[in-house]
Amino acid sequence: MRAGPSQEEIRRYNLGTLLRHVHLGGPTSRAELTSRMGLNRSTIMALTADLAAAGLVREELPRETGRAGRPSLVVRPESARIFVLAFDVGVDRLVAARVGLGGVILDRREAVRQRGPFDTGEVVATLAGFARQMLRKALPDTVCVGAAAAFCGGVRKADGMVRFSPNMGDGLHDAPFGEELARKLALGIPVAVGNDANLAALAEHTRGVGIGCRDLVYLHGDVGIGGGIISGGQLLAGRDGYFGEVGHMVVNPGGRVCGCGARGCLEAEVGERTLLEGAGGAFAGKVGREAVRAVVDAADRGDVVAQDALQRVGEWLGLGVANLVNIFNPEVVVFGGMLRDIYLGAAAQVRSRVNTVCLRANRENLRLRTSALGDDATLVGAAELAFSQVLTDPLEVLARVST
Amino acid sequence: MRAGPSQEEIRRYNLGTLLRHVHLGGPTSRAELTSRMGLNRSTIMALTADLAAAGLVREELPRETGRAGRPSLVVRPESARIFVLAFDVGVDRLVAARVGLGGVILDRREAVRQRGPFDTGEVVATLAGFARQMLRKALPDTVCVGAAAAFCGGVRKADGMVRFSPNMGDGLHDAPFGEELARKLALGIPVAVGNDANLAALAEHTRGVGIGCRDLVYLHGDVGIGGGIISGGQLLAGRDGYFGEVGHMVVNPGGRVCGCGARGCLEAEVGERTLLEGAGGAFAGKVGREAVRAVVDAADRGDVVAQDALQRVGEWLGLGVANLVNIFNPEVVVFGGMLRDIYLGAAAQVRSRVNTVCLRANRENLRLRTSALGDDATLVGAAELAFSQVLTDPLEVLARVST
Repeated sequence: MRAGPSQEEIRRYNLGTLLRHVHLGGPTSRAELTSRMGLNRSTIMALTADLAAAGLVREELPRETGRAGRPSLVVRPESARIFVLAFDVGVDRLVAARVGLGGVILDRREAVRQRGPFDTGEVVATLAGFARQMLRKALPDTVCVGAAAAFCGGVRKADGMVRFSPNMGDGLHDAPFGEELARKLALGIPVAVGNDANLAALAEHTRGVGIGCRDLVYLHGDVGIGGGIISGGQLLAGRDGYFGEVGHMVVNPGGRVCGCGARGCLEAEVGERTLLEGAGGAFAGKVGREAVRAVVDAADRGDVVAQDALQRVGEWLGLGVANLVNIFNPEVVVFGGMLRDIYLGAAAQVRSRVNTVCLRANRENLRLRTSALGDDATLVGAAELAFSQVLTDPLEVLARVST
Repeated sequence: MRAGPSQEEIRRYNLGTLLRHVHLGGPTSRAELTSRMGLNRSTIMALTADLAAAGLVREELPRETGRAGRPSLVVRPESARIFVLAFDVGVDRLVAARVGLGGVILDRREAVRQRGPFDTGEVVATLAGFARQMLRKALPDTVCVGAAAAFCGGVRKADGMVRFSPNMGDGLHDAPFGEELARKLALGIPVAVGNDANLAALAEHTRGVGIGCRDLVYLHGDVGIGGGIISGGQLLAGRDGYFGEVGHMVVNPGGRVCGCGARGCLEAEVGERTLLEGAGGAFAGKVGREAVRAVVDAADRGDVVAQDALQRVGEWLGLGVANLVNIFNPEVVVFGGMLRDIYLGAAAQVRSRVNTVCLRANRENLRLRTSALGDDATLVGAAELAFSQVLTDPLEVLARVST
């Protein structure tokens, strides 16, 4: 438990809150900030002046007000000047981006990753190379205020260690991925690491289909199945950071063997391999997001084998969703990554299971939605993680990285 | 988002925090409060004086210090003077208690409830009768600062409406239980209502086996199975308050029909009826906690049929626990109510399933424990809910109830 805050803490909190408003909400008039933050006009003016002097925001006249009287100045995030580096390490692709304050993707680079054993050195070299290319293109006056990566695996919250990642290939255990990437980048800033599904949940909550929603279950498919949960407005982490391993909820005891060694995990019944294996000869041996989309398209066109495979997967997905709705009582369930395509092709099965298995009270205010950010949800989540420090203590971070 | 707090808000926050310290931690020296709250001695003195003047705490010399020098005064909660009314509505019993600040059960009454249709009027009359008996025995100088009930059913957080309760008998839907009990009590204070498993989780977290633990899964058995989850130190509620209906997680698709209408819910595979039906002729037609204990005892004595039934139930319970550990990454899983007895009799099956199904990272810091508060966990949770307002704003509540 903590004592009451000092004046300095209150100022820091208010600076962070104001910056968060314009970072998430875009250009905002001083008048609106005054009313939203419940502070008086002179305080908002002083806070804005501090942030503007630091180069984090700028004030300008609004384009058009359509009203008489002096217009209220608009506060804009300095998106071109203040940025973070965001990375996304998925099974099949590596992405790096330079993301400006306000969430603008200023620049991005992407590479295909070949499946097979995970080579940390190679991945780090690729991503650091991308970062250097983008930094060279950045103007001299710009400032990098953070860096973070979304990783398809279990990430320890204490130190960002990647503990396990069954779908990245065998042998990936206890990889200090963030440390190695930070060393290679040599920018003097750490690289925070988070689980991809957790970060995508955060992204959908702040910038996607879950804006304004305090209770959200996000399901992410990238070969396997991951989850991220927002409850009461907070992203849940668990004791060590492994919250939301919903892919390893057993829904079919005695079912298919999962990569984790257990049987009948949601991931084993719904994952990419199961869908492609069941969809007929045309898909045998194929992998990846395009192959999943091709099954959904084939089912749409009336391919009976593909339809059967998709429906079976949809039934299990629906059972998993129903269990999570009974457990979490969310307002919205979001299907992301590969599950976006699967849900679009098997929505009837999913909804039917939800209606059969969910308690009435738990489903009466429920919405099922696909990700609004699509394949960028994980990357956007990594950017939000990278921005989190500057939004907590804007001036301190800026002072540190500018020296 | 909110603005920085005013001086008055800070004072209120500090008063509440200090009162919470002595409420949960018992008598505490001023010196310790100073160090724990990070405030200076004169502030602690002033806060304590305010609370003492209101009759919420008193200061006295410690019994023995064993050290030289002037001893620091000890701040004690006024447990005999400040109290709440706590109620527990279970399938087989009704409990009412007068609980003093600090969590002391000052007085209690208990009645057996017959299974069958739930008669709200009758239950309210019984509990209000108990309350009146206890209030008559209370000294004139005492003050009731709140009332709350734990209810075996789904409770809407917006208004405390009991939405459903399949194990309380058919026909219990949308019962304004708290309102009716408050009207019958006629004390001029509302009766907050919470789900029994949620409140028991809160109780174990604040006063039981989960003290100091920020991530806890509590499983409660009372004919059916309920759950309450603490994550990051907070009790989770979900959008409408129906968080933690883990009894209706399907673990065995195509399994036993559940009271909710679905098949293979955890509650259907682990509930009281399944255990007693499987345990052989001696238990046929029996119900209740004593019958469950008798099965566990029979299995202990070598009764093979009882052993088989208990092991089967233990396997399903283990699978449910393993799923929850993968989802929530808790530090501790607590077995309460009837599950306390079942876990004690089937710990081997539960642990074996956890070891097979849980991801290594999710279980490496995991502890499995039985409830420390036993059958009182739900009642203690109701008392904590009843105290929550006075701990948030001590002087306001006292001013309101004393007039």
